[in-house]
Amino acid sequence: MERNRLESFSDGVLAIIITIMVLELGVPKSPDISSLYPIIPIFLGYILSFIYVGIYWNNHHHLFQTLHKVSGTLLWVNLILLFWLSLLPFTTAWMTENHFAPLPTMLYGIVLLMASSSYFILEKQIIKTEGKNSKLKQAVGNDTKGKLSIVVYLIAISFALIHPLISQILYLIVAIFWIIPDRRIERVLD
Amino acid sequence: MERNRLESFSDGVLAIIITIMVLELGVPKSPDISSLYPIIPIFLGYILSFIYVGIYWNNHHHLFQTLHKVSGTLLWVNLILLFWLSLLPFTTAWMTENHFAPLPTMLYGIVLLMASSSYFILEKQIIKTEGKNSKLKQAVGNDTKGKLSIVVYLIAISFALIHPLISQILYLIVAIFWIIPDRRIERVLD
Amino acid sequence: MERNRLESFSDGVLAIIITIMVLELGVPKSPDISSLYPIIPIFLGYILSFIYVGIYWNNHHHLFQTLHKVSGTLLWVNLILLFWLSLLPFTTAWMTENHFAPLPTMLYGIVLLMASSSYFILEKQIIKTEGKNSKLKQAVGNDTKGKLSIVVYLIAISFALIHPLISQILYLIVAIFWIIPDRRIERVLD
Amino acid sequence: MERNRLESFSDGVLAIIITIMVLELGVPKSPDISSLYPIIPIFLGYILSFIYVGIYWNNHHHLFQTLHKVSGTLLWVNLILLFWLSLLPFTTAWMTENHFAPLPTMLYGIVLLMASSSYFILEKQIIKTEGKNSKLKQAVGNDTKGKLSIVVYLIAISFALIHPLISQILYLIVAIFWIIPDRRIERVLD
Repeated sequence: MERNRLESFSDGVLAIIITIMVLELGVPKSPDISSLYPIIPIFLGYILSFIYVGIYWNNHHHLFQTLHKVSGTLLWVNLILLFWLSLLPFTTAWMTENHFAPLPTMLYGIVLLMASSSYFILEKQIIKTEGKNSKLKQAVGNDTKGKLSIVVYLIAISFALIHPLISQILYLIVAIFWIIPDRRIERVLD
Repeated sequence: MERNRLESFSDGVLAIIITIMVLELGVPKSPDISSLYPIIPIFLGYILSFIYVGIYWNNHHHLFQTLHKVSGTLLWVNLILLFWLSLLPFTTAWMTENHFAPLPTMLYGIVLLMASSSYFILEKQIIKTEGKNSKLKQAVGNDTKGKLSIVVYLIAISFALIHPLISQILYLIVAIFWIIPDRRIERVLD
Repeated sequence: MERNRLESFSDGVLAIIITIMVLELGVPKSPDISSLYPIIPIFLGYILSFIYVGIYWNNHHHLFQTLHKVSGTLLWVNLILLFWLSLLPFTTAWMTENHFAPLPTMLYGIVLLMASSSYFILEKQIIKTEGKNSKLKQAVGNDTKGKLSIVVYLIAISFALIHPLISQILYLIVAIFWIIPDRRIERVLD
Repeated sequence: MERNRLESFSDGVLAIIITIMVLELGVPKSPDISSLYPIIPIFLGYILSFIYVGIYWNNHHHLFQTLHKVSGTLLWVNLILLFWLSLLPFTTAWMTENHFAPLPTMLYGIVLLMASSSYFILEKQIIKTEGKNSKLKQAVGNDTKGKLSIVVYLIAISFALIHPLISQILYLIVAIFWIIPDRRIERVLD
């Protein structure tokens, strides 16, 4: 498959994921300010997940930069990444509509963990495909940032059932950490 | 990131926003003309927001015309713009399903204000990136039209709680004002 | 705006319209064959509207074939076409969920009429833009097919309140009539 | 129509199909683990259908590889394929929300059968268009894999009303069978 078709399909899926989450903001039946209160946690969750999808979209384009043809294996690893991201609207809604309760907070983290692990595997696969002089390899090195995120998600998941607030703060920290664009890759590839 | 991937992602998000708003037109259970009456305000709101998304899509493509590579900062400012626009289906539904009540009218304006401000910042950032001979700068000048819209939104927001009708008329005026395509930019870039 | 961005945005909107209509096929709560009966008219309506959106997508790509830059006016006429098509999921659902009652049948036709008229105006505008040797003009001539469809819709709309079945059959006939691809245009442009 | 516009429209439709299925995972009102139990079958069905859409997207790009212009007939056969795939969210939801009951299991298979048959016809049409030295023909031969899938679906459908579990296992086997990328085509076309 040509790279740009994979990219445009992934972009389509990410654009839909990011947009359907807004449908969870159920429209209040009354025009009072108090009718907005129950939506506040859902709105905060929307922001967090919007940022996460933004990050993935943002980083996704770095991956295939040097490949022109994409093999069947890469296609499926990419689909697995999209699969986990497609669950974000569900886990976001479950967490935020239940006042950030422990179990939904844990599941939210598990989906983030699975998505970031898929991303990591995808990255490794592409580096392998590119071979010895892989530009992506030069750009991300050992991808300490990616590994660190996975570790933080694991910590967050372990805390979720006891202190869900800690987990939520950790999810936020990882998000902020990634908003800063990956200048390493930009430097090497541009 | 290459410009065209940012454009196609933005187009995807805008296409979804513009289309899911139609889902708010709940299908009446009866085939009588009277069953359409409650939908009329929702339909009018749909038209207004459709025009707004159309305007943003319309103007959005001017922005990146001269850039080939898009930096991480621009990516995020663009995502912030999309974030505010993604709230339009919510604010449209809240306003129209509550008979254009004061508070929802105010919130509708706040989201328009945030979107237009994000657009303005995005424009400024791109001009900065393009440097001294920025074509976009030549095209939009000081973007009096953009600044004026922001001022009108601010006026509309202040009126919303007292005379929501004035605010709604102002939102409509700004929309009509922008439907007329930006010939300034077309002149310079074509 | 460059032609291909207008095309991909239109494709996006059409792809969403065609797909969200399937959401109206409410999933029955029981696994019995009888639970499918109420869905049958909705399914038939889905087929009809799917064909219509398919036809528009199909013909849409002919339009901009020879243009490289698209003017602001064309952009808005195209958006008006998309606006009317975006109402198809609503009119389809209203008609089919109310057993093809007269008024919804009429509204279904009105939306088709508005869409085809917008298409016709868009075509005329493009021919005007292309100038004297317009390839599109050579291809569609006076667009008898387009004009005829508009006339048939008008007839169908007038019958809707008295004999809705006649209108529905006319909608179907126009659809079948257009499924046959527009070889005139293919001949000239290829 | 140019090939790439057909591809991007198909990608759009497939991206929406794959993503709206996740909306069927209704968000539980309670944060308990037990509230997830009823979602488990829906989730399993989501995985299966996600894989199927992935497979179609995956294979779809092989088809038009050697064509630059797409005829009207091919456009409509492609739309028929998309039509059947667009029914997957419905049949998936009906099957999984009714505990994999016989009739919904049968309908799920019928839609798979119709989709794979449409795909087969599309393939044949393209081979015919390409003529004697068709690269697609060289790549897929007689498409034993495609024919075999159709046969397995037929068997699965016949078992559905008696032993739906057998049918479900057969659907899964065909899916796994196709996940392995079509190296035959990759070999010839690359």
